Amino acid sequence: MAVSEPFELHKKIEELLDIRAFIALKVYLSEQNPVDIAEAFDVLDERELSLCFRLLAKELAAEVFINMDTEKQKALIEGFNDARLRELLSEICPDDAADIVEEMPASVVSRILKHTDRETRDAINEILLYPKNSVGSIMTTEYVSLRRDMTVAEAIEKIRRVGVDKETVYTCYVTEKRKLVGVISVRRLLISKDEDILEDLMTTEYISVLTTDDREEAVDKIGKYGFLAIPVLDKEERIVGIVTVDDAMDVMETEASEDIAQMAAILPSETPYLKTSAVRLWLTRIPWLLLLMISATLTSKIIASYETALAACAALTAFIPMIMGTGGNAGGQASVTIIRGLSLDEIRLKDTFFVVWKELRVALLCGLTLAPFAFLKVMYLDGLYAEPDGIRISLIVAATVVFVVMLAKLVGCLLPLLVKTIHLDPAVVANPFITTVVDALALFVYFALASHLIPALSGG
Amino acid sequence: MAVSEPFELHKKIEELLDIRAFIALKVYLSEQNPVDIAEAFDVLDERELSLCFRLLAKELAAEVFINMDTEKQKALIEGFNDARLRELLSEICPDDAADIVEEMPASVVSRILKHTDRETRDAINEILLYPKNSVGSIMTTEYVSLRRDMTVAEAIEKIRRVGVDKETVYTCYVTEKRKLVGVISVRRLLISKDEDILEDLMTTEYISVLTTDDREEAVDKIGKYGFLAIPVLDKEERIVGIVTVDDAMDVMETEASEDIAQMAAILPSETPYLKTSAVRLWLTRIPWLLLLMISATLTSKIIASYETALAACAALTAFIPMIMGTGGNAGGQASVTIIRGLSLDEIRLKDTFFVVWKELRVALLCGLTLAPFAFLKVMYLDGLYAEPDGIRISLIVAATVVFVVMLAKLVGCLLPLLVKTIHLDPAVVANPFITTVVDALALFVYFALASHLIPALSGG
Repeated sequence: MAVSEPFELHKKIEELLDIRAFIALKVYLSEQNPVDIAEAFDVLDERELSLCFRLLAKELAAEVFINMDTEKQKALIEGFNDARLRELLSEICPDDAADIVEEMPASVVSRILKHTDRETRDAINEILLYPKNSVGSIMTTEYVSLRRDMTVAEAIEKIRRVGVDKETVYTCYVTEKRKLVGVISVRRLLISKDEDILEDLMTTEYISVLTTDDREEAVDKIGKYGFLAIPVLDKEERIVGIVTVDDAMDVMETEASEDIAQMAAILPSETPYLKTSAVRLWLTRIPWLLLLMISATLTSKIIASYETALAACAALTAFIPMIMGTGGNAGGQASVTIIRGLSLDEIRLKDTFFVVWKELRVALLCGLTLAPFAFLKVMYLDGLYAEPDGIRISLIVAATVVFVVMLAKLVGCLLPLLVKTIHLDPAVVANPFITTVVDALALFVYFALASHLIPALSGG
Repeated sequence: MAVSEPFELHKKIEELLDIRAFIALKVYLSEQNPVDIAEAFDVLDERELSLCFRLLAKELAAEVFINMDTEKQKALIEGFNDARLRELLSEICPDDAADIVEEMPASVVSRILKHTDRETRDAINEILLYPKNSVGSIMTTEYVSLRRDMTVAEAIEKIRRVGVDKETVYTCYVTEKRKLVGVISVRRLLISKDEDILEDLMTTEYISVLTTDDREEAVDKIGKYGFLAIPVLDKEERIVGIVTVDDAMDVMETEASEDIAQMAAILPSETPYLKTSAVRLWLTRIPWLLLLMISATLTSKIIASYETALAACAALTAFIPMIMGTGGNAGGQASVTIIRGLSLDEIRLKDTFFVVWKELRVALLCGLTLAPFAFLKVMYLDGLYAEPDGIRISLIVAATVVFVVMLAKLVGCLLPLLVKTIHLDPAVVANPFITTVVDALALFVYFALASHLIPALSGG
């Protein structure tokens, strides 16, 4: 039987609460997935929540708690007496506790830290010290460590003993004076003989990350090698924690969302849309809108300087949006492709020449394909065949499209690479920013061609 | 000791090949990670490759092979005699074999199928039958199945016996006449007593997917619940395979890349940038460029119909790019946010009203913030304070910005939701498409306001 959807789960909880069937509710909840329970609890009111939360067994309660909304967590903690808070905290591992502590107001934080044991408190504080996007900030300090002289039977025995408290038991770490000397999977242990010695089975050529590495480094390696966890070392090569694949997936999703937001000129935010207030959304959007609006002064200036030409040949104005639009789209295609490639490590700085050469060829192909269509569109769809300078203007528009697509693709691929060179995130110069640059270039090419090729203008 | 980087690995291979130190090379390769070896092998020439590949032990050879480029795989297969091909294929599990078969030309495919055993061949064919984005196409048919009356000791014994051939041993499936009756993790087995019966330990309220579900469904569930694998059922609730977390991570990355590509008006492609030819890139980019260029006819028509007004007040033209740009950016911010929310399941269709109401408030905030800056920019940066109609035009531009931002955000949030309603991918209407719609609206508002508020125009 498959589990209930969160929505059904919430309905069922309300039903059982209404008829005060607490025992039935307790049994029902004990069979559900903690992630779903948390989702259903998030929509209960405070009184119901406190009542339902009491019905959960210790371990389940902790798992539900770490998956709940910050607001609800805060409400629950404020309702707990010291003993219950201590009990809950004893079930939560340091990296989850650190996540919670980060979101809570200072008064709640000090209460949490007061009621955790010393070891956990130190671990929480250590995790909180790592910079926001570092491996240290997403690692867990709970892993199984083994000794190299253990037999397979001894190792399995130790895993069975300590495994219940550890984040993952499936990859174990062989250590010596806290230095990591090898890695071994439970699968390897299981398919080996009881009397084999770990030293002979473990991988000594392991792959690891440093606490200070960017968290994407850990995610990329876990993804690339298909690991369930990756060991995290400090500068002295001592193991201080691990990053597990489920946390890596969360980071991967967050990083993709951040890249997408930045490409659309939005400051990244980690809160889901529906839970973000209008004012907060405004704050993430207004800076770029304002900056891009002001920088459009460049295009205004270019148009203003050709005002007489435009007055002499009014038909030219009609194609400004099409030319700018095509340039913007062509540039955006290039920049977004390069930014994504850089972020997946498929493209590196040393490939710059290769990238530029490829984009130039693509641009030429695109430009030459678009040009005849642009000519025909201007002549017939826009009806310029009837005007005296019709053919000439259509040719100018078609030629401009070729130049603009070439320039746009060049800017679109070079800018992200340039920004990467100076160690900034390429996503910040994406689409809208490149469009602003390309808009100016497009207008410039358009008017330059027009003033050279239309006699009335070049005379003026 | 950490492993070598792929680049160093390649250098080392070339060194050892040069001095013909094959034994040393064999030992060296046996210590490296298969993913890195594959990366290094991809840049060897055919003769070197065939030589090096021979040095790999059977199991390692298979793992290296499945991580190599299609071209290199093809070259290797063509160089193999039947016995070697059979040996290699016997080490590759059906889902990886299906991936390879999908990329190979027909002649190679029939040779592959001829040299796999019947059971594997059936499994490959079955996987190939599932539609491209379905769960069936990414699942593996290799999993550990247990019986409900087994003891923990018996279960561990069975895992130790069959585990070497299975994709993952960490989540086991309790089946009865091929029906899935429960799920149990190796961790749970390890921390339980030897004599406990699976029936009492297993989770019967498991979470699963269907072969015909969208592959994103499996990825979302694995991510949400932090699973290492999820069982895949057919319509009769029989288990036919599993999706593992490492495959889910690959799909997650591919899907994010596809969304990003579509948002930038590029047809998605699964090949990495550097390995895609210029002609292929052109094919992914030209359709949208062409369509968007043609649809700009709308903006040309609007401008053409106001040609006399523009001629009477030439200063108006200079602000067309700024107004269209601001609209495009504001609309893009909204659409990209909503599309990402929809794709992460953070936003659902039933939230439409809520989303529109939020976007309208954000739009009003953004518009009202931008308006005074737009006014000041036009007056002073663009120098309209010196012109007779300067204040009037500045006011018109500022008012247009407010309207355009409102319209753009509305279109930007509504269009993706609308497209989702008719079961299409919202990403296809992203940024560039919305910009085209918003461009037309923006020009319309601008000229409408101008012709009503500037006496010379409204008279004309």
